[in-house]
Amino acid sequence: MVRRMGMKKHQQQKMIGIDLGGTSIKFGLVSSGGEILRKTKRKTPASKNFEGVLAVIQGEVEGILQEEGLEKKDIYGVGIGIPGVANGKGEVVFANNLFWKNKPLQRELEIRLGIRVKVGNDASLAGFGEFHFGAMENTRNALLLTLGTGLGAGVIIHGKVFHGSHYLGTEIGHMIVGENFYDCNCGNNGCLETFASATALVKYVNHLLDAQEPSSLKDLREGQQKPLTPQQIFEAARKQDEVALKALNRFTRYLAVGMANLINIFDPEVIALGGGLSESGELFLPELRRRTKTMTYVKENNPTEIVIADLKNDAGILGSAMFVLKE
Amino acid sequence: MVRRMGMKKHQQQKMIGIDLGGTSIKFGLVSSGGEILRKTKRKTPASKNFEGVLAVIQGEVEGILQEEGLEKKDIYGVGIGIPGVANGKGEVVFANNLFWKNKPLQRELEIRLGIRVKVGNDASLAGFGEFHFGAMENTRNALLLTLGTGLGAGVIIHGKVFHGSHYLGTEIGHMIVGENFYDCNCGNNGCLETFASATALVKYVNHLLDAQEPSSLKDLREGQQKPLTPQQIFEAARKQDEVALKALNRFTRYLAVGMANLINIFDPEVIALGGGLSESGELFLPELRRRTKTMTYVKENNPTEIVIADLKNDAGILGSAMFVLKE
Repeated sequence: MVRRMGMKKHQQQKMIGIDLGGTSIKFGLVSSGGEILRKTKRKTPASKNFEGVLAVIQGEVEGILQEEGLEKKDIYGVGIGIPGVANGKGEVVFANNLFWKNKPLQRELEIRLGIRVKVGNDASLAGFGEFHFGAMENTRNALLLTLGTGLGAGVIIHGKVFHGSHYLGTEIGHMIVGENFYDCNCGNNGCLETFASATALVKYVNHLLDAQEPSSLKDLREGQQKPLTPQQIFEAARKQDEVALKALNRFTRYLAVGMANLINIFDPEVIALGGGLSESGELFLPELRRRTKTMTYVKENNPTEIVIADLKNDAGILGSAMFVLKE
Repeated sequence: MVRRMGMKKHQQQKMIGIDLGGTSIKFGLVSSGGEILRKTKRKTPASKNFEGVLAVIQGEVEGILQEEGLEKKDIYGVGIGIPGVANGKGEVVFANNLFWKNKPLQRELEIRLGIRVKVGNDASLAGFGEFHFGAMENTRNALLLTLGTGLGAGVIIHGKVFHGSHYLGTEIGHMIVGENFYDCNCGNNGCLETFASATALVKYVNHLLDAQEPSSLKDLREGQQKPLTPQQIFEAARKQDEVALKALNRFTRYLAVGMANLINIFDPEVIALGGGLSESGELFLPELRRRTKTMTYVKENNPTEIVIADLKNDAGILGSAMFVLKE
């Protein structure tokens, strides 16, 4: 999807935004007005090897310049969102899915590209994308929660990306909100993402099926060689399957606790929900809003809006591009 | 206690900081270097009547000026922390302990005093005091938690007081962290302050005593005409009373959940603990640090420090004074 096609006035800058994931690397040539002028995708090298990833990025950035007839000097900078912790020096402190620790990503890319590079956390930068061009536009304080395998967050405070003092903040998926029947892979029990994520949903359905609760999902699970997907659970919920509805209800109930906690703490203008599960938002958004409202400290006319995020897969490249331009 | 007695260089400003509580109103004539040049206290009128409080404040501010031989023009401004929500226009949206709703405190005081006035939340401004002159000095992101009747918080982000977008933020006492045997007075179950506050501690001890658990506190409670105090419970814990230790342990365990959540969310340099219970911090601080560490997402060398706040009762007047100077 190419956004904001209208030509913008003078002084438009061009940036390249990169969303580096464990399976793919997404690239966007982005204007400062938020147009995505070109969008490409490459596979993340299977080894996740640092040098290998650098080579893929270098190759693709140079390819984009060539295709677009641009020179390095035409690019204001390259922003890159990584699935882990990046510090203020552009080093990847750790990125578990990539098996990286202490990788000087900014420095190595700047040497290879000859273009300024800024590195940030992927969810934070997706939030920055929604802040500039999506569901969090025209706010000063707003949060993006990404409901995927885990629960990630991008937090904007005072109009800036908030990372915390040591780039370790906004781990909202690991906010403890109760007790759960399984432990989080961080070692704790009761983390929000063990109740409100794709993993959580599937685990809870399996838990119910293992306890012999009757459900159409039982046959489905047994008939296929792979685990149930959230989409299958949502589909069953649409058909009023009891187990699916029970799991969806629990997911919504705990997500509402998380939302209320975040509203009580941050009092943002907007909390936007992104990530794969948000695409089935119609199934839980009304109930989520209702439940959240009962738990916020200020209940009457609480002004925080809960919405589905706008930019889908483009949030990361737009936010990364704006990150190098603005911060 | 008069802080920072050393004379400061040219251009020192003088402000009056006011800490408005349900039982007393504290006043401080404060220099921009953080010296408290004069400190006074008046009773809050029993009726909590808005006009009555305005008259007390006006009388006391004028008295301070007279005693110090100062004129209105010598005072940069008056900052005032209120026990409730104050919006950006200096209106008290609500302050339950004062029975106030929608009171134009800034405007009415400016008319009466002829001095600029700024109004903020008391815990937020106490945090701003610790940020300038206390346990949170030299930080960019830091939190003060006040462990009193409830659990309040002052949050500094990017070096500024953080209120949220609608001045409803930092209600950290109402973060839901589990299930409790009694409901919070906000209507929810599981709020942090129902586990980690003076009220919580006393309620849990009563709960154990009512369940006939043997304890020296049982006789104490029955022998006195008033409820147990946190100090009595701490004293019993020092003497290894089982019920007191059990209550202290639960208090610490849940406070650690709150601390870990806040570290995972904010990644601050410092979390400072203030309020009455923090004066017995030696009883729970080592265990609190240990437990918090096991629950933070980044466990190895997590850099957030947990400390006891410095300024005690002066935090509010210092923070209020700095608030009118800086924000």
